[in-house]
Amino acid sequence: MSTLIKNGRIVTADSDFTADIFIEGETISQIGKNLNVSADEVIDASGLMVFPGGIDPHVHLSMPFMGTFSSDDYTTGTRAALFGGTTTVIDFILQTQGKSLRHAFDEWSGRANGNAVGDYSFHMAVTDFNENTKPEIKEMVEEGITSFKTFMAYKGALMVDDRMMVALMEEVKRQGGMVTTHATNGDMIDYLVAKNLKAGNTAPLYHYLSQPEVTEAEASNRFADMANYTGVPAYIVHLTCEGALNHVRDAGKRNQKVMAETCIQYLTLDASLYEKNFEGAKWVMSPPLREKKDQAALWAGINAGLLQVVATDHCPFFWEQKKMGENDFSKIPNGAPGIEHRVELLFSEGVNKGKISLNKFVEVMSTNAAKIFGMFPQKGCLAIGSDADILLFDPNEKHTISAQTHHMNCDYSAFEGWEVTGKTKTVFLRGKKVISENEVQVEKGYGKFLKRKQVNGVI
Amino acid sequence: MSTLIKNGRIVTADSDFTADIFIEGETISQIGKNLNVSADEVIDASGLMVFPGGIDPHVHLSMPFMGTFSSDDYTTGTRAALFGGTTTVIDFILQTQGKSLRHAFDEWSGRANGNAVGDYSFHMAVTDFNENTKPEIKEMVEEGITSFKTFMAYKGALMVDDRMMVALMEEVKRQGGMVTTHATNGDMIDYLVAKNLKAGNTAPLYHYLSQPEVTEAEASNRFADMANYTGVPAYIVHLTCEGALNHVRDAGKRNQKVMAETCIQYLTLDASLYEKNFEGAKWVMSPPLREKKDQAALWAGINAGLLQVVATDHCPFFWEQKKMGENDFSKIPNGAPGIEHRVELLFSEGVNKGKISLNKFVEVMSTNAAKIFGMFPQKGCLAIGSDADILLFDPNEKHTISAQTHHMNCDYSAFEGWEVTGKTKTVFLRGKKVISENEVQVEKGYGKFLKRKQVNGVI
Amino acid sequence: MSTLIKNGRIVTADSDFTADIFIEGETISQIGKNLNVSADEVIDASGLMVFPGGIDPHVHLSMPFMGTFSSDDYTTGTRAALFGGTTTVIDFILQTQGKSLRHAFDEWSGRANGNAVGDYSFHMAVTDFNENTKPEIKEMVEEGITSFKTFMAYKGALMVDDRMMVALMEEVKRQGGMVTTHATNGDMIDYLVAKNLKAGNTAPLYHYLSQPEVTEAEASNRFADMANYTGVPAYIVHLTCEGALNHVRDAGKRNQKVMAETCIQYLTLDASLYEKNFEGAKWVMSPPLREKKDQAALWAGINAGLLQVVATDHCPFFWEQKKMGENDFSKIPNGAPGIEHRVELLFSEGVNKGKISLNKFVEVMSTNAAKIFGMFPQKGCLAIGSDADILLFDPNEKHTISAQTHHMNCDYSAFEGWEVTGKTKTVFLRGKKVISENEVQVEKGYGKFLKRKQVNGVI
Amino acid sequence: MSTLIKNGRIVTADSDFTADIFIEGETISQIGKNLNVSADEVIDASGLMVFPGGIDPHVHLSMPFMGTFSSDDYTTGTRAALFGGTTTVIDFILQTQGKSLRHAFDEWSGRANGNAVGDYSFHMAVTDFNENTKPEIKEMVEEGITSFKTFMAYKGALMVDDRMMVALMEEVKRQGGMVTTHATNGDMIDYLVAKNLKAGNTAPLYHYLSQPEVTEAEASNRFADMANYTGVPAYIVHLTCEGALNHVRDAGKRNQKVMAETCIQYLTLDASLYEKNFEGAKWVMSPPLREKKDQAALWAGINAGLLQVVATDHCPFFWEQKKMGENDFSKIPNGAPGIEHRVELLFSEGVNKGKISLNKFVEVMSTNAAKIFGMFPQKGCLAIGSDADILLFDPNEKHTISAQTHHMNCDYSAFEGWEVTGKTKTVFLRGKKVISENEVQVEKGYGKFLKRKQVNGVI
Repeated sequence: MSTLIKNGRIVTADSDFTADIFIEGETISQIGKNLNVSADEVIDASGLMVFPGGIDPHVHLSMPFMGTFSSDDYTTGTRAALFGGTTTVIDFILQTQGKSLRHAFDEWSGRANGNAVGDYSFHMAVTDFNENTKPEIKEMVEEGITSFKTFMAYKGALMVDDRMMVALMEEVKRQGGMVTTHATNGDMIDYLVAKNLKAGNTAPLYHYLSQPEVTEAEASNRFADMANYTGVPAYIVHLTCEGALNHVRDAGKRNQKVMAETCIQYLTLDASLYEKNFEGAKWVMSPPLREKKDQAALWAGINAGLLQVVATDHCPFFWEQKKMGENDFSKIPNGAPGIEHRVELLFSEGVNKGKISLNKFVEVMSTNAAKIFGMFPQKGCLAIGSDADILLFDPNEKHTISAQTHHMNCDYSAFEGWEVTGKTKTVFLRGKKVISENEVQVEKGYGKFLKRKQVNGVI
Repeated sequence: MSTLIKNGRIVTADSDFTADIFIEGETISQIGKNLNVSADEVIDASGLMVFPGGIDPHVHLSMPFMGTFSSDDYTTGTRAALFGGTTTVIDFILQTQGKSLRHAFDEWSGRANGNAVGDYSFHMAVTDFNENTKPEIKEMVEEGITSFKTFMAYKGALMVDDRMMVALMEEVKRQGGMVTTHATNGDMIDYLVAKNLKAGNTAPLYHYLSQPEVTEAEASNRFADMANYTGVPAYIVHLTCEGALNHVRDAGKRNQKVMAETCIQYLTLDASLYEKNFEGAKWVMSPPLREKKDQAALWAGINAGLLQVVATDHCPFFWEQKKMGENDFSKIPNGAPGIEHRVELLFSEGVNKGKISLNKFVEVMSTNAAKIFGMFPQKGCLAIGSDADILLFDPNEKHTISAQTHHMNCDYSAFEGWEVTGKTKTVFLRGKKVISENEVQVEKGYGKFLKRKQVNGVI
Repeated sequence: MSTLIKNGRIVTADSDFTADIFIEGETISQIGKNLNVSADEVIDASGLMVFPGGIDPHVHLSMPFMGTFSSDDYTTGTRAALFGGTTTVIDFILQTQGKSLRHAFDEWSGRANGNAVGDYSFHMAVTDFNENTKPEIKEMVEEGITSFKTFMAYKGALMVDDRMMVALMEEVKRQGGMVTTHATNGDMIDYLVAKNLKAGNTAPLYHYLSQPEVTEAEASNRFADMANYTGVPAYIVHLTCEGALNHVRDAGKRNQKVMAETCIQYLTLDASLYEKNFEGAKWVMSPPLREKKDQAALWAGINAGLLQVVATDHCPFFWEQKKMGENDFSKIPNGAPGIEHRVELLFSEGVNKGKISLNKFVEVMSTNAAKIFGMFPQKGCLAIGSDADILLFDPNEKHTISAQTHHMNCDYSAFEGWEVTGKTKTVFLRGKKVISENEVQVEKGYGKFLKRKQVNGVI
Repeated sequence: MSTLIKNGRIVTADSDFTADIFIEGETISQIGKNLNVSADEVIDASGLMVFPGGIDPHVHLSMPFMGTFSSDDYTTGTRAALFGGTTTVIDFILQTQGKSLRHAFDEWSGRANGNAVGDYSFHMAVTDFNENTKPEIKEMVEEGITSFKTFMAYKGALMVDDRMMVALMEEVKRQGGMVTTHATNGDMIDYLVAKNLKAGNTAPLYHYLSQPEVTEAEASNRFADMANYTGVPAYIVHLTCEGALNHVRDAGKRNQKVMAETCIQYLTLDASLYEKNFEGAKWVMSPPLREKKDQAALWAGINAGLLQVVATDHCPFFWEQKKMGENDFSKIPNGAPGIEHRVELLFSEGVNKGKISLNKFVEVMSTNAAKIFGMFPQKGCLAIGSDADILLFDPNEKHTISAQTHHMNCDYSAFEGWEVTGKTKTVFLRGKKVISENEVQVEKGYGKFLKRKQVNGVI
């Protein structure tokens, strides 16, 4: 099977030109002007931009949480991702405290295997690091899981204390992996949640007020300190605020590089949404949405190179599930749908509004994630021999985001009614046209698990 | 004329793969596996790395300075650059105070036109900004000179005071250009020079001691402040030290992006060389070499994204010229040869020693300079339609740098005896093989002047 | 002559108690409970607070400026100071560029000698430091003038460039003195003034807009850098803003101590006053009033120990004089009246509103200035043997500030209509009751010139 | 009983003069030149300095720790303090987790009451804050214990987690108290201790290496963040290093004032002492001694006003007790003797060596502690009506510190052989001469418990 994509404007992190792309089998085999090849299929991409397929390294599919599961499974979630131009996602395996990493790996693999439409990998969230777990780090690296997530919150369920954190860091460094974290002071948050509930403050607004900026800033500094001490490659997930960003920046003064990701919602939405009474539950996620000044800091952080990745933390719940917390914000399942619109929103709000360059757009929606997480150059670039994960994108087409039309398994949208300029038209995953004419072209099971390489925190 | 480069390991800022490159005329027309094309020449690049041609945005050729001229002219300088894999350089036109920019432009163009072997452009160093000069900014932008250099030192000759600086910044911003600066407190330096000479401290060591870190740090902060106030895209040339770097970093806290370049010598040499009595004159340049702690900060600064470019500030003088300052360090012509070895040294000291990644290497030796200075994507990438400026590089070949063998018009080397791993083998400039078998293949005049585009300080 | 002040609440920087004070001749000879002494006069201070006489180290009396003179001379100015509880002031001698320090010293001494009512000293403002001036630093120190003011603004009239600054710093350090500065980027301001005038922006508001925070922040950093390099004791006068304060703070990271003063108006008034059309001219001073966030930073800066002194920069002009700039803000004489109300305003706004403690109040309105400027323990404390400069203060008396009632030679007040709680009742200067029953009790000529000691910048 | 101290050089935080002091009963009643009073005793203090009695707000007497007790009890400890000029100490009550504050208060009071020679108060170390403990905060404040100590280390014994910390802060703020902390990341330390022991690294050096600077810096930042969020007055005990100091400094950028104390040993001794094999156990304390660069930062921190207090953390153990850790550094009781020599060492190393002024010396060894901890003006100053706690000090007398001659109940000295210039000669406590002719003049039980006032964190 071969495909020739003709006359697209090919944009990568470091180039921008009009040419043809020739795909043979699963990979790109030629790029050039007027390629003289015979292809099974020829597609005219005139007027379209051609990007490497998007990579979203922060999603939660079928995640057990607060007594329920996030509503997108590997099929619906990766399919929705494809509709929005994201061809690869990295999900999080959550170790159960007291059990092995292997146990969790098997459980998650079982849910994913054969069900994914798009390609996927896993981070391993280590929630209980001890003498039994320690040798499993090497095993997981050998399985191709080279990034180890930690939670500095959710005490008693997911949180590791600093002792465990440092111990884990030393072992992960030894095995050529990376430690990532949900950086937030879990103890402070637990206190504020309890205090607010006791005071009868049960609305979603109090979810926001129970996670003030300082909780994230503090933990980001602490994580950076521990990473610096141990020397482990380090990455902060879903960084949302100026305070945390400045700690990442200041870590550089000791020649340390802390990697960091933000998410599309933190760049575009703000905490005023929590003032809408229970409707605010739609955006109950952790960390919560922040202020306008934080949005400005995050966009600048992307251009400064402090934030390398824009992800989603996609973790949707149906409105009925959200209502579990109608009388108690702490019972609202945390998370929101986003996997489908990351690329389009980033293009529309970032590139079109002059906040980032086209090259930077590709870098943070695809290339950097591939480099950071050990999937490069298989993924993240339009290069000869790389997987033919390709996104044909109409930069001028306007459309409106709505739960009525989205493909995520969720009955509301975090961006309902947003007008977006720029639309995913055709998507290739490993050479196969998976999205075309607003239809998915492949079945579940097409998506493959990606074994990732060892990483070193410098890209 | 067409060329097929086969089986090279093609490395760009965002990709790394083995394939063929097909050149037609002056540009790259195809990249792919086993390209089935007929070419006038076929080159086997097996075992070699293939990079975009290097860009050195900071050189001084035939520069009038301190009563003499830098010893490389456009012919010898750009030829030596080619031998080291640098296909494009940007030189500095120096306005004479009291005269027009056009006058200087004509003078410099006159020296360069028809003489260059490699491609070149100019920055315009504005040394006297006034009502007459003001309309010339637009003219120069139209000539393709979109970056305006300032000197915060050399009072009475080149220095602009802060009033002129701010006025210039506002006009340059209006015309879509960028202001760059030699950031150093000229007044402090003038004082220290005079004080040292008065005390009989005439050796090269006192050149170093007359330009302490604080002089550069202070001026970097001041320049960043003025740039932030005016909103002009800003770039600091030859940043050498931790103090200056931290001011660039802290500017980010107000969401400002100050671009910055360092030079290969600041990454690799240190101030202990000034202790060699008059031999230290070889490294008399401004700013001077710094300390080991600064080297560490600069490498980290590259990885942090604070330093986007590694240049040379190539400005060679013969030993006889250097001797003008035998009894007075302030009479030693400032500068050293470097244009030829930047790429190889950066590869050897940076990539081979694990300080930067291969992609980062390409970024800072070529791609970023093209983007920052308005030459992208014509230059700085290996992409379809881009100029076929291509460097075939043997990553394993060891050689020793020496004035005996270098091609720069200078009778000493700043890196005499340095063993380097990695060697430029074959170089293409706009499709033509200009270096091969250790010989230059083209005559002077092959190098073309590049008109550059407007820039915005975000890449 | 002896006086017994009975039962006052004596408050100093480090104590707070009720007792009697016995004055013999010019100094305090005893402090104690129920002192059993016979005094020529006995004063009941029950219900009053007893403070050391205020010291205002930043005033301009009969200052030639912009073709006119500040409207308070040594008689009216020091008398008004006494009415407000300030017993000692330090004025500024301004060297004329091209002339000697001695020349200026004689001129200023001529104006002050025999005319002052309160005690006074001088700072020497060095505006032209050269080989002729250099030996005069020692002479001035011997005359008791140990602080040397510099202007980083007013180019062509008062400004010293950085070369002169560093040279001066080295000599002043050698002679045991201190360098102080008006920290502001004069060049930037000159540019903005010219730009605004050219654009027809002539109102007082543009005075403010021509001196943005960055001009002061930048210069503060530059001054701190030069002081650190030379090691001279350094002091920034009239610091007004967060940006400058943070540079002073950060200087501490290299173990440097930069002293700094703010003025009462920067703590209490803000830039919204400039929106009142030409009435804003009342507050045209340099630096201009700032924002609310700067006020918060300044109060915190006092408590942090970063700001040791609250002065006035008293420099009054009659409304008729201000009108010189009716059509051109740059022609408005810079300055405002303040010498009389510093102590009362600081008490009312600082102590009464809980922003600073009573001890801190005494420290910053008197004690620290004495220590910093070499007048301690003669001045600045209520101690045995110290000059009996004593202020009896009613902490509860409310009154309203008005040009109708103030004693400054100026027909408007910068605080017209302000209600103040706390009033100066009786003032002693060197043992003599100089203010009592709202009347001054001494003639001009009572005030003495104070020879100050060498200083070292650490208190 | 009355005493007249004649002709001493009286030095306080804000004055310096020669005069007489007249003591009646327990307080100072007069200060003056040639006081004409009849006294029961007249003491000639010519040639001596007269200071307010020293206050050491950080001592541990008869402290149960690691299965033993610190070797000075209230009698020997406060007596040794008096010998060195310290008239007041504040000890720490340690709540037992699971028990009430009252229980601990009674236990500690029982040990202290009737046994102290010098005056004393308590901080309450809250180790278990919960619904039962919460109302006890108010009770303790009513008992005169207004400062609440927390440990961020010693998990399972003394440590409070951040949830408890924030809850405590809110309650303490409500009750007008202050929260203090041993700022160090207990989890990281626990990990490093375990790791070192597992690796067979049992020597005292590993105590040091298990508590790297980052553990203290991190926790200082975290504590400052939590204090800022809650608004509670906050104080960091025994701050030792540049990293922690800079977090205290940077907290000021948000207008926060975090108070901090260092100890005399951190200013004078450094970590090279740990290289002495097991002899290093003498200095095993937490935090450990640091580096020379930290000493420089601490002295500068005192002058910057960032460190308000120099204490001792006196916690002596006999060599036999120290030997409990001969094969395991983690079993060495933490602490060293110091209570006796704080004042003399600070004078000799600080004032005599020009690092701090005489006034600053008094401030940090006495006045500030009185102000910060609610004992002012009863303690901490030489003022009328204040307790006659007076120290006659010979600034010129040289002597050598030795366990042979010290009065602390410990068989070694942390400063053995140190030559000190400046000696405590005569000490008064509440009007009574308690030290004279190298003999203590009072019995145990003379020392009184001090009820302290509410505090607000601004002095």
